[in-house]
Amino acid sequence: MAPRPTGVVVYMSDFGWSDPYAGIVRGVIDLVSGGRVRVIDLTHDVPAFSIVAGAYILYTGYRFFRPGTVFLVVVDPGVGTERRAIAVETRNYYFVGPDNGVLYPAIEEDGIVRVHEISNEAIFLKPVSMSFHGRDVFGPAAALLALGVPVSALGGPVEPSTLRRLSLRTQCINEGRVEAEVVYIDHFGNVALGLERDCVERLCRRSGRVVVETGRGVFEAKCLPVFSHAEPGEMVFYLNSLGFPELAVNLGNAGEKLGVRIGERLVIAPG
Amino acid sequence: MAPRPTGVVVYMSDFGWSDPYAGIVRGVIDLVSGGRVRVIDLTHDVPAFSIVAGAYILYTGYRFFRPGTVFLVVVDPGVGTERRAIAVETRNYYFVGPDNGVLYPAIEEDGIVRVHEISNEAIFLKPVSMSFHGRDVFGPAAALLALGVPVSALGGPVEPSTLRRLSLRTQCINEGRVEAEVVYIDHFGNVALGLERDCVERLCRRSGRVVVETGRGVFEAKCLPVFSHAEPGEMVFYLNSLGFPELAVNLGNAGEKLGVRIGERLVIAPG
Amino acid sequence: MAPRPTGVVVYMSDFGWSDPYAGIVRGVIDLVSGGRVRVIDLTHDVPAFSIVAGAYILYTGYRFFRPGTVFLVVVDPGVGTERRAIAVETRNYYFVGPDNGVLYPAIEEDGIVRVHEISNEAIFLKPVSMSFHGRDVFGPAAALLALGVPVSALGGPVEPSTLRRLSLRTQCINEGRVEAEVVYIDHFGNVALGLERDCVERLCRRSGRVVVETGRGVFEAKCLPVFSHAEPGEMVFYLNSLGFPELAVNLGNAGEKLGVRIGERLVIAPG
Repeated sequence: MAPRPTGVVVYMSDFGWSDPYAGIVRGVIDLVSGGRVRVIDLTHDVPAFSIVAGAYILYTGYRFFRPGTVFLVVVDPGVGTERRAIAVETRNYYFVGPDNGVLYPAIEEDGIVRVHEISNEAIFLKPVSMSFHGRDVFGPAAALLALGVPVSALGGPVEPSTLRRLSLRTQCINEGRVEAEVVYIDHFGNVALGLERDCVERLCRRSGRVVVETGRGVFEAKCLPVFSHAEPGEMVFYLNSLGFPELAVNLGNAGEKLGVRIGERLVIAPG
Repeated sequence: MAPRPTGVVVYMSDFGWSDPYAGIVRGVIDLVSGGRVRVIDLTHDVPAFSIVAGAYILYTGYRFFRPGTVFLVVVDPGVGTERRAIAVETRNYYFVGPDNGVLYPAIEEDGIVRVHEISNEAIFLKPVSMSFHGRDVFGPAAALLALGVPVSALGGPVEPSTLRRLSLRTQCINEGRVEAEVVYIDHFGNVALGLERDCVERLCRRSGRVVVETGRGVFEAKCLPVFSHAEPGEMVFYLNSLGFPELAVNLGNAGEKLGVRIGERLVIAPG
Repeated sequence: MAPRPTGVVVYMSDFGWSDPYAGIVRGVIDLVSGGRVRVIDLTHDVPAFSIVAGAYILYTGYRFFRPGTVFLVVVDPGVGTERRAIAVETRNYYFVGPDNGVLYPAIEEDGIVRVHEISNEAIFLKPVSMSFHGRDVFGPAAALLALGVPVSALGGPVEPSTLRRLSLRTQCINEGRVEAEVVYIDHFGNVALGLERDCVERLCRRSGRVVVETGRGVFEAKCLPVFSHAEPGEMVFYLNSLGFPELAVNLGNAGEKLGVRIGERLVIAPG
């Protein structure tokens, strides 16, 4: 049985907060739903066009919302190309966005039930623009799902095995060095790594320290349960509150110190 | 018959998101309406005191909201002077803000039905401050309109012909050069021009290229349906998703490249 | 009798708008309340870890919200240490946050009725993280209060005299010089001073001018009812719209000119 919609759309994008784009989509949801759907903003500062950061934010965040919530995810560098627009029903939620991997970690974890393309032009806001599908395609689709319209009404079925995949986590098989992708850097400069949870324990077990190699150099970090336990300026390695291994500098900016950006890779090894 | 209020206030300002000013106005709307009015934020990053940018955001955005919506527009460089505070009923909507032109393109397009001054002190939050009329005057007025109070209850009638006018669009009479005002620059640096929609076709018809002159120099731009079709770094001229001619640099910042700011003028001509 | 909850949580934090942290707490409130509680954002740009700025924003803002509102205040540099998490019932409102002084000016003014620790683990979101108590502890507590759960259900009673105190205002006893804390600087650079309201009158009475001493030098400011009455570039001293004495530079940035930051002190004297 499909999860019962709650009348809430959780909305995330890379539109930024400054421009009116995010606000216009809120308007379309109010318009399409006749005021019966509430919007909760997750964030609109997904780094522009960063699919991996968008996937991280959605994956770490969706579990804190009520079953039946509809997630509207507009991180869409391929808008205007032939990438598919999709609506996904999972065991507990609904997801609307481009088929570029941004939804994948979340929908795979929650359990994909069915996927449909958003191709039924009757639901689009017309004229459909070349570059603002958040307003013309995704927003109306999310509003309708939140009202209880089934995903199958939005377009033809999509075989889940054809979805664009994206993996946020690399496994630490043994206790040796591992290459990790930077999946997010928050405004404090804390650097989240695309590793399994148990990598913290595996890498820290031997000495309580890790060594980090980036294009800028080699850095040492101490394993501590939380970054505020470190000395000012000291680099720390720990499991962050969203369940990902993370590097931080207490009262400093780890991203700047390490010289890394989202999507880049670094190497981390026991110290 | 007046449009039936939906119980929604759409709120835009130049207060910024950082300070508590926008949030306090949300509180006043909740207070005055006894919790019966919902606020949807359009944006609070209208460039400070920029009436033309505010007018552009309102004009391009209002049409995506439900008929009966109340628009609360606080872009008010003249607060504390004798500019009038007005409430406007149009064919489909309500608008609240200063009589400085910021409302004009939207209300003129939708069709002005009646305008009243907001001068009935009984509705003000007291003591009325010298500089925070968003909280003390405009916010309460918007909340009341959203509850169904008629605009005529807010103060005396205003003759529409006395309103401060503002025009966002210049016509391209022939296919020659035209002087255009920069009416908005978004956070990508895309430069919206205050021209009629058909200027894109008129200027591009001859060669598929335009020439742009600014204080910084002369630039060439290619006419393309959407900026993502251009080469990286190439300047493009197209109709944006809000219906205005726009200059953009694919994967770059056109505003910085052209050296222009909102409210400045440039010259654009067939290439 | 306890104030009747309105089903609204007003939420302020130093999480910033960019990261998903504020949005996740909105999700938890929706989750815990089964969708029966609305969130109004006051701001999420309280300067990071600045208890005095948080206290100023809460104290100057709470009065514009409906009686029965629950204020969720996450400005918590001591998260993970033994500082208490508290829920406060005042004469007209509810407040949830850390016991670090950030709530104090507001709850003292409104009148403390009872204070309880938030220690009942049954209400926590588990597993409770080391650093995200906004999500795991404060958010659920605020949602429950907004549903009508009494503060006493959240944990054991706290003796109000043991609360961490914080004072935002220094008195101007006579008409001489006074040392003032910078309690807030807004995005225009306007510098709010932690002084009583009547300090403006007392300091300005003699000459209509004041002299300001900071680490950077000595500055003159003119006493005017509102900063827009000054000449461009002129420094002004006045009572701001939130009831605090403030220094501003018309069309300029007083914080930068004075070289001061929130939490620093300056000396102000009649000119």
